[in-house]
Amino acid sequence: MIQPILKEGERIDGLPSQKINIIQNPDMFSYSLDAVLLAHFADVKGKGTGLTVDLGAGTGAVGLFYAPKVTGKLALVEIQPELADMAKRSIAMNELTQRVSVIESDMKAIFEDIQPGSVETVLSNPPYFPLNETTKTNHDKHYQLARHELTIDLPGLAQVVNKLLKNNGKFYMVHRPDRLADIFAAFASRKLMIKRIQFVYGKANREANMVLIEAIKSGRPGGVRIMPPIIAYTSENNYTKAVSDILYGTSWS
Amino acid sequence: MIQPILKEGERIDGLPSQKINIIQNPDMFSYSLDAVLLAHFADVKGKGTGLTVDLGAGTGAVGLFYAPKVTGKLALVEIQPELADMAKRSIAMNELTQRVSVIESDMKAIFEDIQPGSVETVLSNPPYFPLNETTKTNHDKHYQLARHELTIDLPGLAQVVNKLLKNNGKFYMVHRPDRLADIFAAFASRKLMIKRIQFVYGKANREANMVLIEAIKSGRPGGVRIMPPIIAYTSENNYTKAVSDILYGTSWS
Repeated sequence: MIQPILKEGERIDGLPSQKINIIQNPDMFSYSLDAVLLAHFADVKGKGTGLTVDLGAGTGAVGLFYAPKVTGKLALVEIQPELADMAKRSIAMNELTQRVSVIESDMKAIFEDIQPGSVETVLSNPPYFPLNETTKTNHDKHYQLARHELTIDLPGLAQVVNKLLKNNGKFYMVHRPDRLADIFAAFASRKLMIKRIQFVYGKANREANMVLIEAIKSGRPGGVRIMPPIIAYTSENNYTKAVSDILYGTSWS
Repeated sequence: MIQPILKEGERIDGLPSQKINIIQNPDMFSYSLDAVLLAHFADVKGKGTGLTVDLGAGTGAVGLFYAPKVTGKLALVEIQPELADMAKRSIAMNELTQRVSVIESDMKAIFEDIQPGSVETVLSNPPYFPLNETTKTNHDKHYQLARHELTIDLPGLAQVVNKLLKNNGKFYMVHRPDRLADIFAAFASRKLMIKRIQFVYGKANREANMVLIEAIKSGRPGGVRIMPPIIAYTSENNYTKAVSDILYGTSWS
């Protein structure tokens, strides 16, 4: 690991299982279990030599956690300069500059940098909350942009993903279960066929608070598989063995 | 319980938790855990005085298991004369003839018997399998009609349900998770807003093999809740406590 220069308020958080470290600033944005589970959920096509794009990469957590699974290049797309800068320094810190780069861009303008139809795998942990009268405005603007659909909404995201992917390319997304109807509608309208869904439940007796989705561009309709439930915490508020293995263990290999 | 006259091949199966008995003929059709879980999943609107309709009722299991939860009338709609006949005798056996009746009809013709917009709650355990080149034809015809979309498919079912229900009336359905994209599309096109989903997993480490769905007619879009997972069997192949409580216990009250 190359020691990075940290700016004020920054710290380094690591994912031991993948031997990846991420520069974070809790005042701006922190990745959470969502990013780890998405990177773990995403499969690798063939030998993993194709191009991977992380849309709305934030500090780069999803892309960097996924990077050790593949041998090909990754492009992390992030619109916010401060987060893109952290992602760049995290890439250097993890000695991944040969394969991983940051594109500081609105994802709707990404075709200035990436050829349509050239991407094997798209990853995204997009803003979860629709814009409406209840949108809270008391958050820091970095959190606002990361959490609310200010710059991209689900139909817009599906459009960009469709245009980026090769036929049969895969899209992996983490989102909130309450948006499931919107997700199905947006994906169906852009020929992104949902193939696998996995729900994450905070505890065994709680409603799901996270959903992991795999879709394939121009895949055959129907045939969604609902993978075994992921329970995050035991009744004693410890990580379950399944999640602990993802964070600290060998469940990635 | 009034002792019924059983025909050849018939037997009586009971759901102890609801004190309901059902006449079955395993050569024609048997209800399964799907019917029990659907009746348990379905909520009661207000005091339960409104009309409930069970579409594709088979031998009447879903409607009869649900009947003790409400005080209003129930209509069990079944196209197959032999199954409708068993349902009628089960209603008599359970002394529910005052409230529960059978309509032997194609559900698409149901508006000859039931006024559009008059129904509080629709229940359905419809055929799970789409018609296609892999449709097996070696089954008994009763199983065929119950299992395959020969007489009604998801868009057709959604159309009938939409027309039956009052505004804000509820539709409860059990289906297979692999049809989820079709379900979302069919429901959305008929203003049936999905509000609650619960997945049933055979075991904790298995993919879901059943999905319970609640939709509301002309409800506000968005806001799907994914209820806690139901695990059917322990690793030792016994019913889990949750399912055992539904079959034998007091989890209905």
